[in-house]
Amino acid sequence: MTNRRIVLASRPVGEPTHENFRMESEETAGLCEGQVLLKTLYLSLDPYMRGRMTDGPSYAAPVGIGKTMVGGTVCEVVESADPNLQPGDVVGAFTGWQEFAVVPAKGLRKVPGDGKLPVSTALGVLGMPGMTAWSGLLLLGQPKAGETVVVAAAAGAVGSAVGQIAKIKGCRVVGIAGGPEKCAHVVNDLGFDACLDHRSPTLATELGAACPKGIDLYFENVGGKVFEAVLPRMNDFGRIPVCGLISQYNATELPSGPDRSQKLLLTVLTKRLRISGFIVSDFMPHWADFQREMSGWVREGRIHYREQVVDGLDNAIDGFIGLLKGANTGKMLVKM
Amino acid sequence: MTNRRIVLASRPVGEPTHENFRMESEETAGLCEGQVLLKTLYLSLDPYMRGRMTDGPSYAAPVGIGKTMVGGTVCEVVESADPNLQPGDVVGAFTGWQEFAVVPAKGLRKVPGDGKLPVSTALGVLGMPGMTAWSGLLLLGQPKAGETVVVAAAAGAVGSAVGQIAKIKGCRVVGIAGGPEKCAHVVNDLGFDACLDHRSPTLATELGAACPKGIDLYFENVGGKVFEAVLPRMNDFGRIPVCGLISQYNATELPSGPDRSQKLLLTVLTKRLRISGFIVSDFMPHWADFQREMSGWVREGRIHYREQVVDGLDNAIDGFIGLLKGANTGKMLVKM
Repeated sequence: MTNRRIVLASRPVGEPTHENFRMESEETAGLCEGQVLLKTLYLSLDPYMRGRMTDGPSYAAPVGIGKTMVGGTVCEVVESADPNLQPGDVVGAFTGWQEFAVVPAKGLRKVPGDGKLPVSTALGVLGMPGMTAWSGLLLLGQPKAGETVVVAAAAGAVGSAVGQIAKIKGCRVVGIAGGPEKCAHVVNDLGFDACLDHRSPTLATELGAACPKGIDLYFENVGGKVFEAVLPRMNDFGRIPVCGLISQYNATELPSGPDRSQKLLLTVLTKRLRISGFIVSDFMPHWADFQREMSGWVREGRIHYREQVVDGLDNAIDGFIGLLKGANTGKMLVKM
Repeated sequence: MTNRRIVLASRPVGEPTHENFRMESEETAGLCEGQVLLKTLYLSLDPYMRGRMTDGPSYAAPVGIGKTMVGGTVCEVVESADPNLQPGDVVGAFTGWQEFAVVPAKGLRKVPGDGKLPVSTALGVLGMPGMTAWSGLLLLGQPKAGETVVVAAAAGAVGSAVGQIAKIKGCRVVGIAGGPEKCAHVVNDLGFDACLDHRSPTLATELGAACPKGIDLYFENVGGKVFEAVLPRMNDFGRIPVCGLISQYNATELPSGPDRSQKLLLTVLTKRLRISGFIVSDFMPHWADFQREMSGWVREGRIHYREQVVDGLDNAIDGFIGLLKGANTGKMLVKM
């Protein structure tokens, strides 16, 4: 088989461009015992990939120059040298931006083939983004019925699930998203109580009006101006799970002053806030609980999801650049 | 009785000065049923009092202009119109910067009169500062044996207790304090493994050397440059209980840029840090546990404390201004 893959050609300074990537072709290797040959059906595009392109301290090693871009995938088994997988099986994998891959069968997760939900949900609402939403909101944020929850990037794969779970838990839920169309989707299709456009010059005032009892829980995906608008409206004992900071990923230097970090700490002190960074992989022991609960909600129609599908590996780079600019509504996927 | 008291004359801009205070005299009122007349033995001076002088949003209402400065006290009962207290009883109270006070007996706490520990400890190691250290470190910080704990303001009433409790729990403990004398006290008398001078121009480098395994828990009393030195050295899953930010209390404007708040959040995210503000009053249900454990440690000689005593109400203002500048070692008290 000829495999096409996208490798990291150079590290971006600021926004990634096409020049930071390179398409390569190679013949797939033969199978050793315990390995399988996978054909990618769907590739997940996610904001965290921006971090892997940079060579700095983080929770994961960066992608090496010349190496295949990382990413979650749903794949079909084409050949198998492992007794537990057969050709035709569909599995969740982490084979990255490529059309084929030879990997150990161990560690692959069969995607339930009950036919009720498309296999692509294993990369979205029932996959890493859904687990991120479920664990960050419930395990770290600990929402209580009647509380007010604000969700950044509310139209995205994670934010859309966060807000709907918070509604199930009996909270008032206010989303923040980019533009009137996304906001309409968040309220009308996802059932949030309100959604504000982060581009509005009066965001802070609108947020005060949308949260008359203040904010008890802020699910942070964005940072920057959205964080600045939310922080003064946090209630005593508020929780801020920090899941992402997409507004900062392309930053090449610290924002200009004044320095708001000490004001942030003073607010944390006087309001007794709890700010907790997290990464979905920290919560993997809870995976089965998440699957059971979330798939139940999706089947019952209590959690809705949307997918934005890019067609083919040739369009993956444009899809990713668009994702970082907020071009997507719902989960962004490449269909191979 | 003639009562002398210090009232708030005006709100400070920046560092408090004598002009912000005024001494007044008045006759004490007669007792109604359930009230007692208290004579102050000791007044506690604490950094939080700076916050009460300012009219801004905080966890407690500010002291009104013309009102007595607030503060914890140890008092002797002079007259009683309540069956539960007799003249001569010694109680913990919150009667503020004055020599006498008429207050309800309800809510006063008898100071154990076993003669083994001076009554002033009810304002220090066995009082609010000790409880702050115990609850912030153990309940929020959750130190584990073998971890590295860094304590800001390590020679102060709270920091000195934090570090000693962390040693009892089997941690490596590094203090940060102002000047070589305080640092020597912290290491030689209190038993910390090391103590660094926050005035050193090479604090960040010294901190790296003193914490070769990184920092798992930072007990924040200071903010500013000390926080900046600590943050990059935090380990994954590190905890930062925010108890105080004394370097910022006199600030009249935000520090100049760049804005480090987003960098702070990025560090929280990638290292999965937990930053939690707290106030000792939030933990009052644990008071009896604290008293039992801490008084045991003090009696066994495992926790040492030092008091810095100012003589008489006339010197309270200078004592407080000095406290904000770090002039004290250990608990600062006014002996009436």
